[in-house]
Amino acid sequence: MASFDSTEHPHRRFNALAGEWVLVSPHRSKRPWQGQQEKPQVEQRPVYDPTCYLCPGNSRVGGEVNPQYESTFVFDNDFGALQADVPTGGLNEGGLLRAEAESGICRVICFSPRHDLTLPEMSVPAIRQVVDLWVNEFQTLGARPDINYVQIFENKGTMMGSSNLHPHGQIWAQRTVPGEPAKEGVQQLAYFQEHGRTLLADYLALELEKKQRVVLENEHFVVLVPFWAVWPFETLVVSRRPVQDITQLTPEERDALADALRRLTIRYDNLFNISFPYSFGLHQRPTDGQEHPEWHLHMHFYPPLLRSATVRKFMVGYELLGDPQRDITPEFSADKLRGLAEVHYKETE
Amino acid sequence: MASFDSTEHPHRRFNALAGEWVLVSPHRSKRPWQGQQEKPQVEQRPVYDPTCYLCPGNSRVGGEVNPQYESTFVFDNDFGALQADVPTGGLNEGGLLRAEAESGICRVICFSPRHDLTLPEMSVPAIRQVVDLWVNEFQTLGARPDINYVQIFENKGTMMGSSNLHPHGQIWAQRTVPGEPAKEGVQQLAYFQEHGRTLLADYLALELEKKQRVVLENEHFVVLVPFWAVWPFETLVVSRRPVQDITQLTPEERDALADALRRLTIRYDNLFNISFPYSFGLHQRPTDGQEHPEWHLHMHFYPPLLRSATVRKFMVGYELLGDPQRDITPEFSADKLRGLAEVHYKETE
Ligand SMILES: O=P(O)(O)O[C@H]1O[C@H](CO)[C@@H](O)[C@H](O)[C@H]1O
Ligand SMILES: O=P(O)(O)O[C@H]1O[C@H](CO)[C@@H](O)[C@H](O)[C@H]1O
Repeated sequence: MASFDSTEHPHRRFNALAGEWVLVSPHRSKRPWQGQQEKPQVEQRPVYDPTCYLCPGNSRVGGEVNPQYESTFVFDNDFGALQADVPTGGLNEGGLLRAEAESGICRVICFSPRHDLTLPEMSVPAIRQVVDLWVNEFQTLGARPDINYVQIFENKGTMMGSSNLHPHGQIWAQRTVPGEPAKEGVQQLAYFQEHGRTLLADYLALELEKKQRVVLENEHFVVLVPFWAVWPFETLVVSRRPVQDITQLTPEERDALADALRRLTIRYDNLFNISFPYSFGLHQRPTDGQEHPEWHLHMHFYPPLLRSATVRKFMVGYELLGDPQRDITPEFSADKLRGLAEVHYKETE
Repeated sequence: MASFDSTEHPHRRFNALAGEWVLVSPHRSKRPWQGQQEKPQVEQRPVYDPTCYLCPGNSRVGGEVNPQYESTFVFDNDFGALQADVPTGGLNEGGLLRAEAESGICRVICFSPRHDLTLPEMSVPAIRQVVDLWVNEFQTLGARPDINYVQIFENKGTMMGSSNLHPHGQIWAQRTVPGEPAKEGVQQLAYFQEHGRTLLADYLALELEKKQRVVLENEHFVVLVPFWAVWPFETLVVSRRPVQDITQLTPEERDALADALRRLTIRYDNLFNISFPYSFGLHQRPTDGQEHPEWHLHMHFYPPLLRSATVRKFMVGYELLGDPQRDITPEFSADKLRGLAEVHYKETE
């Protein structure tokens, strides 16, 4: 029998950051597909939409009126999943019915006053203002004694459940550390205790040596398709310097993050010549007052598309009941993304 | 301040079966929604479709011709994510790049020769034949020394990535135990070691006492919305007798499972008067040759719809980066499902 070849044979990969496995089936990427094709998103939005509750000067459901903001704008979500003033309490019957009150704050961040823009269509200085806002929000929310974790994220596109296409992200900040960063915390702590370096610093060094999965780099950030990627074109944005959270970035590093985000999202849009849907989020240290030298700031991009503007990867049956599964390899995806231009397709059309 | 009320205040619930948390935001179920509405699935399929590779007598991509089967039919997936003959091997660089070959078998199960049917439209005896097939497959696949876990599931509907609407399910059987059953195994073992009873036996007793989350019962099975449900109308089908796998069911219990499945899926279809999309799967003991008295056979139903035939719950940003989140409470969902008829809407139209 031939020897094992990860570009040919089904295998499992270990996600060293989360401590989980993903099933990879590279031989399967050529099978025919008869399933659902989603409508490509129609892409003509006005600069200002009078019915949009995020556009400057418009009023929101609660009656509040947005200021005539000129760069970014942040406010408390009028329908947040979390609330700051929740009575404490809960229940526990034999460990089987266990619940506890959860408090927190949900914020909405408008990236731009322009209804028709998206991150890849914004300039580096404009994206830098979004980064600055993240820094401020992380600082202010994280300083509260009732907030121990700050989750910054964006859902982009209707395919990702975004209920308004005005460019915006969200922050859910809360009392407890949610499951995903908690898992990463466990893995990073174990690694740090053993090696005295962050897991992602060593992982990044390995990837920079191999180059196979690196998509783009600048002086302070690297974007790569992680070895253990679940989504077809999933990427990880890692700071070269092992900082625990975004407030520790120097001004140059903040610019570099803005640059990396712009270049990555342009490549994403250029992959299928559409505004590429994804969820992204920052993972950083818990704001529980501890030091957390094991934590290494990074961003995950989880985009659902698989082979075209309309064919997505479904995380369904086996994935929900067994393990995440993918067909194309992370190396194939990195190669595709690496081959794309960093000029947005709309500018070349 | 008022005291904590789980029908009003944001809270976290512990999934005792998987050892994870879900964020519940009951106050939020009244917010307006402007996002994507998916097209309801058009529902007129012929009894026989000459282009369907699952219909009796048709040929499949590999050239094989399906028999003129009259009840169920099972075959090896022509494009399985797993393969039985894979060279062993893998890699491990510093625990950071870790992969290993994975072998297994993917099977496709046709539930009926009729292209136009779905489980809720089949009779109990016909569903019983599907159950019998699961039993046979679990037995045969599980007996192989190279198979340590057998995952039986169905993805129903285009919204769940099903690439062919002919009523069918799948089996992915493999060398290792995937993450989801592995987590449940850990929780169940810890509980069994402490109490000498299965976790689900005690949980079921609690739920039968409270009735709040029970959807339907028969002599041998109970269907309920678990206390820790993630998906809006998620359910758990639990055997009253703590059996480790489906082969241990008596003939009466197999009939009762078929009855419970029929009644549950009819209620699902009646919720929004459409063929209700979902993924379901059986969770059972690993087939690793051990006894596993801690394991208690159950089925999960994970349906994506939230408020209508077209408005779904998206598991995106916060869910992918933090924790699963839901708005309506499991008690509300159970109440809704309990209130529905067990005669299929198509029969009353
Ligand atoms: O095998 P199918 O039905 O073509 O594919 C479907 O189910 C599989 C198992 O859950 C998933 O991996 C696929 O993403 C989904 O589209
Ligand atoms: O808050 P939005 O954008 O309306 O809602 C979206 O993001 C949330 C956070 O990831 C999810 O819980 C919702 O399912 C999704 O539709």
